[in-house]
Amino acid sequence: MPDGIVFIDNEFVSPEHAKMSIFDVGFVWGDTAYDVTSTWKNWFFMLEEHLDRFQRSCDRFQLKSPYSRDEIRQICAECVQRSGFDDSYVKLQMSRGVMSSRTVDPRLSDSAFVAYAIPYVWIWGEEKCRNGANLYLSSFERVSSRAVDQRIKNYNRADLVQARFQALDEGCDDSILCGPDGYLTEGSGYNLLVVKNGRVASPDYNVLEGVTRGALSELCKLENIPFELRKIHPDELAEADEVFASTTAGGVMPVTRISNQPVANGEPGPVTRRLQASYWGKREQGWRGTRVDEILATPMQSTGTH
Amino acid sequence: MPDGIVFIDNEFVSPEHAKMSIFDVGFVWGDTAYDVTSTWKNWFFMLEEHLDRFQRSCDRFQLKSPYSRDEIRQICAECVQRSGFDDSYVKLQMSRGVMSSRTVDPRLSDSAFVAYAIPYVWIWGEEKCRNGANLYLSSFERVSSRAVDQRIKNYNRADLVQARFQALDEGCDDSILCGPDGYLTEGSGYNLLVVKNGRVASPDYNVLEGVTRGALSELCKLENIPFELRKIHPDELAEADEVFASTTAGGVMPVTRISNQPVANGEPGPVTRRLQASYWGKREQGWRGTRVDEILATPMQSTGTH
Repeated sequence: MPDGIVFIDNEFVSPEHAKMSIFDVGFVWGDTAYDVTSTWKNWFFMLEEHLDRFQRSCDRFQLKSPYSRDEIRQICAECVQRSGFDDSYVKLQMSRGVMSSRTVDPRLSDSAFVAYAIPYVWIWGEEKCRNGANLYLSSFERVSSRAVDQRIKNYNRADLVQARFQALDEGCDDSILCGPDGYLTEGSGYNLLVVKNGRVASPDYNVLEGVTRGALSELCKLENIPFELRKIHPDELAEADEVFASTTAGGVMPVTRISNQPVANGEPGPVTRRLQASYWGKREQGWRGTRVDEILATPMQSTGTH
Repeated sequence: MPDGIVFIDNEFVSPEHAKMSIFDVGFVWGDTAYDVTSTWKNWFFMLEEHLDRFQRSCDRFQLKSPYSRDEIRQICAECVQRSGFDDSYVKLQMSRGVMSSRTVDPRLSDSAFVAYAIPYVWIWGEEKCRNGANLYLSSFERVSSRAVDQRIKNYNRADLVQARFQALDEGCDDSILCGPDGYLTEGSGYNLLVVKNGRVASPDYNVLEGVTRGALSELCKLENIPFELRKIHPDELAEADEVFASTTAGGVMPVTRISNQPVANGEPGPVTRRLQASYWGKREQGWRGTRVDEILATPMQSTGTH
């Protein structure tokens, strides 16, 4: 259990007191949308993009928020402030809630909103996120967007968990999954990017539209590095000059081995390093940032609906 | 919230006190296996088959139980006895548990076991379960077993929930989903069965191996009705003599309309009615049954591991 502050049932509590009903169908039916943003040196990064995506995820799952967007922004900021962490991992979560025992109609449920701030998370530990991980090309298929739209950030992640088990059993750090069409999708919480001849490419379908990946497309533009979303066959990994991953929980992360084989010379490549330095440098300067204290000082624009 | 009794954190509590950590990765990663059995007139039905399947689901998700099989059986019986319900819905659930904040390695987690007994659940209400429902042939695809093995009863059910939304919006009671190969799979918690020329058939792949469906294959044998598992194309529904569904939460349930069109003459058919009468008649007589009080009177065979 991490340190931090959780907003749940309209109050701020410590993580050990953050409990939900076992009857919340957000759990029982996997009927929960979420998002993760972060602060670095007290700057939220691309907060509005995260709030936009969270709203889209909720809309696609037909989850109605009991809080307005302004209220959610304030709750996130207050979680960070109360936690005392300058560098934090901030989750927003909307579950379907506890339903009446007399119906299975999800339209009749009141959604439950939870947010929390905990210390910044490095998905594979800071060292591997900064200097290179070994990802296993999984035999588990990523759930198809025809079944669950993977643009919706959601808790139906059993494919990712099983792929992670497999990766760890094979001596790797985590996994990469292909979709039902046999093309690369993503990993257990991160987008995948491939560099060949100075061009950056990332899978265009059946993946989360990563906010960090979106930031990278902007950084590529600033640095005059060609960036494209397209189908990527797993065979391209063996011929890639560089491979890296992107996520809120680690930023720009070199992938130096795939299924225990080195990518190129097995070291983080120059494009990855350039984008990584640019990403962290700009974050520290507040690029695309919103200060926690500024949010808290801003009067709310709307009164919300709860 | 239903009435009943929940066993959680090693004690029996009322449903409103049955709370879990929001950090349980059984929730956050959809990393939970479960099963549902039931009692009717104080007889558990095919309890060992449900315990077998629960064990297989846990094994396939690599979830280790803190309780032995004998302990789980006793806990289920005690939940029913404490609830006071003769006809009950009994759930068993194993979630990955709360992990250390320092790792994302699911192998390092201690699973959390929960069980509860609540009043018997009729998935569509008793009237529709007994006399016919209208199921919508969904445009959402069932999650592929190549991504999440659908023999594992698990909470990654967003496809089923979205299909249910769609069905309700179309004026139907619930849904039927096809798999990635375009063939029928199952609905939101029930197997599907089709009758043509006196033969009963049910999809053979990408579905839960329903215990009620297994009972039906035995009842078909007793009644000399041919029963087979095979690929079933959705076009067969329009030509079927009868369609029905099977689940612990409703038994043998006629499907009299599909996507608002009548199946045959729109009435429950003779094979469905015969199997339904046989199912409930045998359950009342304790066929394949175990008495709740007998379990409670049996000394435990093993001491368990917790």
